[in-house]
Amino acid sequence: MTAGSIVLYEGLGTAVLILLGSGVVANVVLRPTLGTGGGWLMITFGWGFAVFAGASIAEPSGAHLNPAVTIGLAVAGATEWGMVPFYLIGQFVGAFVGACLGWLAYKANFDKNYEDDPEANRDTRGIFCTGPVVARSAWNVVTEVVATFVLVFWILSNPAAQAPDGSGVPQFGNGALGYAAVAFVVIGIGCSLGGPTGYAINPARDLGPRIAYAVLPIKGKGSPEWGYSWVPVVGPVVGAVLAGLLALGVS
Amino acid sequence: MTAGSIVLYEGLGTAVLILLGSGVVANVVLRPTLGTGGGWLMITFGWGFAVFAGASIAEPSGAHLNPAVTIGLAVAGATEWGMVPFYLIGQFVGAFVGACLGWLAYKANFDKNYEDDPEANRDTRGIFCTGPVVARSAWNVVTEVVATFVLVFWILSNPAAQAPDGSGVPQFGNGALGYAAVAFVVIGIGCSLGGPTGYAINPARDLGPRIAYAVLPIKGKGSPEWGYSWVPVVGPVVGAVLAGLLALGVS
Amino acid sequence: MTAGSIVLYEGLGTAVLILLGSGVVANVVLRPTLGTGGGWLMITFGWGFAVFAGASIAEPSGAHLNPAVTIGLAVAGATEWGMVPFYLIGQFVGAFVGACLGWLAYKANFDKNYEDDPEANRDTRGIFCTGPVVARSAWNVVTEVVATFVLVFWILSNPAAQAPDGSGVPQFGNGALGYAAVAFVVIGIGCSLGGPTGYAINPARDLGPRIAYAVLPIKGKGSPEWGYSWVPVVGPVVGAVLAGLLALGVS
Amino acid sequence: MTAGSIVLYEGLGTAVLILLGSGVVANVVLRPTLGTGGGWLMITFGWGFAVFAGASIAEPSGAHLNPAVTIGLAVAGATEWGMVPFYLIGQFVGAFVGACLGWLAYKANFDKNYEDDPEANRDTRGIFCTGPVVARSAWNVVTEVVATFVLVFWILSNPAAQAPDGSGVPQFGNGALGYAAVAFVVIGIGCSLGGPTGYAINPARDLGPRIAYAVLPIKGKGSPEWGYSWVPVVGPVVGAVLAGLLALGVS
Repeated sequence: MTAGSIVLYEGLGTAVLILLGSGVVANVVLRPTLGTGGGWLMITFGWGFAVFAGASIAEPSGAHLNPAVTIGLAVAGATEWGMVPFYLIGQFVGAFVGACLGWLAYKANFDKNYEDDPEANRDTRGIFCTGPVVARSAWNVVTEVVATFVLVFWILSNPAAQAPDGSGVPQFGNGALGYAAVAFVVIGIGCSLGGPTGYAINPARDLGPRIAYAVLPIKGKGSPEWGYSWVPVVGPVVGAVLAGLLALGVS
Repeated sequence: MTAGSIVLYEGLGTAVLILLGSGVVANVVLRPTLGTGGGWLMITFGWGFAVFAGASIAEPSGAHLNPAVTIGLAVAGATEWGMVPFYLIGQFVGAFVGACLGWLAYKANFDKNYEDDPEANRDTRGIFCTGPVVARSAWNVVTEVVATFVLVFWILSNPAAQAPDGSGVPQFGNGALGYAAVAFVVIGIGCSLGGPTGYAINPARDLGPRIAYAVLPIKGKGSPEWGYSWVPVVGPVVGAVLAGLLALGVS
Repeated sequence: MTAGSIVLYEGLGTAVLILLGSGVVANVVLRPTLGTGGGWLMITFGWGFAVFAGASIAEPSGAHLNPAVTIGLAVAGATEWGMVPFYLIGQFVGAFVGACLGWLAYKANFDKNYEDDPEANRDTRGIFCTGPVVARSAWNVVTEVVATFVLVFWILSNPAAQAPDGSGVPQFGNGALGYAAVAFVVIGIGCSLGGPTGYAINPARDLGPRIAYAVLPIKGKGSPEWGYSWVPVVGPVVGAVLAGLLALGVS
Repeated sequence: MTAGSIVLYEGLGTAVLILLGSGVVANVVLRPTLGTGGGWLMITFGWGFAVFAGASIAEPSGAHLNPAVTIGLAVAGATEWGMVPFYLIGQFVGAFVGACLGWLAYKANFDKNYEDDPEANRDTRGIFCTGPVVARSAWNVVTEVVATFVLVFWILSNPAAQAPDGSGVPQFGNGALGYAAVAFVVIGIGCSLGGPTGYAINPARDLGPRIAYAVLPIKGKGSPEWGYSWVPVVGPVVGAVLAGLLALGVS
């Protein structure tokens, strides 16, 4: 796997992940849509199948789609540290592009949402990036650490998440069954640990779209809340490192 | 695979797809039903498992069920252009037949819905074909392009969507696992990108039932909205061509 | 497979199917439960995974669990007619036993439901057997014919529903994947075609529990509505025969 | 498999099971969360995918995660009685640890829930352990017996739940497909038989978190209801023994 291919496939897969992930939140949060008010279960399924779709597309590069996964695999010795920067570039660029595509898909709805109720439109940040229900940074970090730890430790524990062909390419899954497994775990984490902070569990998933929110010409948009932006980066990285270390210790 | 078999299996599979797909919307939208008001998540699951059921039945012909899929595969070189017309005939005829069967299955409920509230019955068009929440044609096309691009690019990227036996028959899946994968992606697209336009992502899924709505003797029905009918044809075809070209470029 | 084994495994599997299926309706319909008001989507998932659990248990006998499936397979030549009576005995007895177990599991809740609101308790029939939202027998039969046709034709079309080992035993699935496929189709039929009549699609599923409702000492219970009881028997059998004949014609 | 490995893997898997399982209830029950009021279907999916995640992690020890499963397998001769104590130690310790982690992940939300409405906070026991809607101990035991019987008999009946490699290690699943099968059955039991008592179906799942609830410094917490705590221990054990005996009888 060349560095260029890693950037390409991680970028394509993460773009699809974020396009579908931001899309389901837009569908639920914006008022003039068919899925408005669809609830948290629909959001978790939307993100879960977004992982499924994105991971299949990024299969050639191992389908990390997430800096926390890449770092956890590197700590556990399953990804070369020299390749890590290329994974991260693809993931962050893909996340930014996916968020822009999601905005285009819902452009008419963003506009109408603003026209109908200019004040309410300030809440559109939640379509792009995460935020806490109860803002207490230390505990918000704990939540992200725990949730990301579950994701990464599960990947490192699960034979279904290893390369099936012994190619040495770290694999997120082994074909459709492995991606379904990852999707089920992500749906589970969303249902179970998404309540406090919106389960970033992925620095690129949060920071890329947050930058998109800051730069896109969204009518009546609110603040990107930069003050919180470190939490969904630091929490997932810490959780991933702990998972990688525990996986090393157990094996 | 003969041309006749393609028409037969695509017709059977697409009829089941549209029967179940229009059925879930009827269940949610009509008031005298057990699932009335069931919400968008139920609609996306209904359509997703409709794809699952229809695709299994159309396995011998590759289970396209969708002109956008057929065209995307042809652009990418995975289906012969000479076979494309037979796929389309089966798909459009099957979609029309499926919509008629769905109406028969809910006949008593359509009638009662009209008797209870003649005005409300004018909304029954949504049971058959798609429409935008915010009517802005150009952006509605963008939404359909993006959503169909994700579907077709995913199919072209995914080994689970290729023929497992090297038979040369373009395959939508490889048995139950492949169809489940497609169903999950379609559920995901519905949750995530169905909010603005109702995710036609399939010209036959929209136009066939729209014609059925126009000709069936549904009490108190409204207009089939021919003025919008080009959007869910043009958008999906454009998205499919883009996906086919990108798949060619990446491979 | 001996006649006795068919009765045993069909009985065990159908009992689990009906125990879980009647249970989810009790959970939604009875007021003093944790899942009260859970909605139609939960009912369809409950029944879908009820099929999944029951089918795995009845694997040795081919996991029909449904006289319509048995008859459809017999028409298509995939089950010996001489074995059909033993399948039906197991299915009807199992369905009756499963409904009784479901009542026991919810006994305290049935009692409290009656104490809290004696009138409302008359609706408990829906926990055991199906009924139409709009009572028009001919159209109710059509709905059951169409819905059962989809189920049985899908089983007959799908390689995943055939015996994997060439044993000659008609199989409902091939291990967990096949049962999941059946469960997805049953969830889909419930979402899509369950709205008018409650999707019996199985004579044993309806008649066995209806008899249980008639004989069990349920406080304040209403009528078992024998006048409707022929619809969920005749409709599914007709649908299954049509599916068997079409499968013969296509193959 | 050494005794130490059994304790380790059962502990890790059960901790993840209870972390995610208590998490989804916290998300639904506590008011300041993103999933508040998410409903019973979301709770059943959360617990189902919690089983999926925990079972994958505990694959080396057979992924019991549940004393009822261990005892049922021992009765049926599929687990050595001498190993049973080590399974139970891992399961109870893991359940306690998982409940503590779940509390940490929702710490800020527990605090805010108390601050907003001190009285309502007394209901937080339901996040940790089960309780009946209608308190009638004998019938509550019946419900737990029936629900656990279905789970354990299904495991003992299903080839997908047996060790695929003939290693003699009792297996809860065979890779991702087997764990998905177990998750589907657990979701089904939750939808169908969870209404009366909250489906403990696992003594460790109930008692471990109940002890955690008793000892953790949760603001304004209510009673751990020790008077009910024997029901979700005795019911599941009886159900498991009955399932083991029936499996012996049938095979």
